[in-house]
Amino acid sequence: MTVHRKILTQHGFVDKDLLTYPYEERGLQFGDGIYEVIRIYHGDYYLLTEHVERLFRSAAAIKLTVPYNKEQVYHKLAELLEINDVKGDAKVYLQITRGSAARDHVFPDTEPNFYAYVQDLPRPLTELKNGVSVITQEDERWQNCYIKSLNLLPNILAKQEAKEQNCFEAILHRKEKVTECSSSNVYIVKDGKIYTHPETNNILHGCVRSKVKTLAQNLNIPLIEEAFTLEDLQTADEVFLTSSNAEVMPIISIDHKQVQDGKPGTKTISLQKAYEQDAKIEQDASIFQVQ
Amino acid sequence: MTVHRKILTQHGFVDKDLLTYPYEERGLQFGDGIYEVIRIYHGDYYLLTEHVERLFRSAAAIKLTVPYNKEQVYHKLAELLEINDVKGDAKVYLQITRGSAARDHVFPDTEPNFYAYVQDLPRPLTELKNGVSVITQEDERWQNCYIKSLNLLPNILAKQEAKEQNCFEAILHRKEKVTECSSSNVYIVKDGKIYTHPETNNILHGCVRSKVKTLAQNLNIPLIEEAFTLEDLQTADEVFLTSSNAEVMPIISIDHKQVQDGKPGTKTISLQKAYEQDAKIEQDASIFQVQ
Repeated sequence: MTVHRKILTQHGFVDKDLLTYPYEERGLQFGDGIYEVIRIYHGDYYLLTEHVERLFRSAAAIKLTVPYNKEQVYHKLAELLEINDVKGDAKVYLQITRGSAARDHVFPDTEPNFYAYVQDLPRPLTELKNGVSVITQEDERWQNCYIKSLNLLPNILAKQEAKEQNCFEAILHRKEKVTECSSSNVYIVKDGKIYTHPETNNILHGCVRSKVKTLAQNLNIPLIEEAFTLEDLQTADEVFLTSSNAEVMPIISIDHKQVQDGKPGTKTISLQKAYEQDAKIEQDASIFQVQ
Repeated sequence: MTVHRKILTQHGFVDKDLLTYPYEERGLQFGDGIYEVIRIYHGDYYLLTEHVERLFRSAAAIKLTVPYNKEQVYHKLAELLEINDVKGDAKVYLQITRGSAARDHVFPDTEPNFYAYVQDLPRPLTELKNGVSVITQEDERWQNCYIKSLNLLPNILAKQEAKEQNCFEAILHRKEKVTECSSSNVYIVKDGKIYTHPETNNILHGCVRSKVKTLAQNLNIPLIEEAFTLEDLQTADEVFLTSSNAEVMPIISIDHKQVQDGKPGTKTISLQKAYEQDAKIEQDASIFQVQ
């Protein structure tokens, strides 16, 4: 997916071919930074406030000063879409590291490095329509997964393992209790109720997760924030995951075993419809138009 | 500490002012890589084999292919010292990431980025002579700390907290059981015996740690690889830590409380002497010459 030409940095807009970092950079040597991925539909940000609020929460959690206040971030992110003339479906990837400095664990006295770029991102229509397969894996990550940090090695390894098994994602569990996926939140539906892991330090407090809570409420589907187990997963009526990239994504197979009849469930579909409405997806771009 | 001019990369030697990486680099965006820090005394590598072996173990653990075989690594590391005319005390910092590629959790099909540079590093003589103060902190890291990976955010945060409390290091513990420090291994001496955490996945298998096992054996000091608790730490006769940077470093204060009489203990000093001998430190550079 093409990255748009103009990248926003703390020193203004820079052409993507010219944006480089020195070998002693805190992101490069320590993963000392945070990031956000923000969805854009039809040239407009979706859930922007939620992402910006989380960005500042992540920054505070690692004692990193965002080089802008929130108003400035909103302003700059709007400029980013404008300057790149973004009209379609896309995403912004934004990261802030503690800057370029001689390698030392202790915080350097330097300015943070900030960048944000736009990348085209068509909706994963076929997957949204048909559902995806996942594997399960032990959650070996650190204790502060609520921080959207650049320390993503365990997430990468889990996702790669999924890919090697021809799957879309890996559901992670700590001692049989399901937390989330490698880059998304996960839910089961059982007897008409949705269950998902509570917002502790062990999961990312997903922006789409937060939206799904509201959508479920509007649809009168009870959503219970309570950890479920690998066994619950096996007997669930429906399973789905959510993220900015994957929206509300039905899971139809887990560890190569079909979930119920192997088709997206009715509650999941209701949430997908409500999501499309909330994100102002146009009728002809709806997954329900896919043949 | 000055970085020497010529940096070794997978494309040969590069001047340090010219070595940069694109904004989409796996280290920069995921911490997707591994590293080593190798000590140099008087222009010669110390414990080189141990470091190179561990480099390959870390690489295998994250399914990363080192772009050289071991023989080539030894050869190139020798060249690095030669080309920079290294004669004094220094260290080599070496890292390998999964390369520069469009951001995607899944492994890219690209060459790994490899670099290694030399930095002058005088021995911390005053600290070695007098000992250092440390704090204790919850170990919130992931389950695979035996991998020397670039995911170092929790280590940084612990070290920064130590610094803010005017301390040298942070001793980490999982549920009261001491694992290691943020960038070193830790030991207690009790009733003439040394205790340290066993080589599980929860600690780095330190090269100096491994050397200390041999040195203790030569000195007829029993070394028991068994986890000790925060309480054991408080009642220990001696406490010390080891790393390539810090060598065998006496700990004389923990959480602002003095260890015994607040002076380096006799067993620790015996190990320091044995270490200097093993590392072929010259008489006039010995910590025992410091006034």
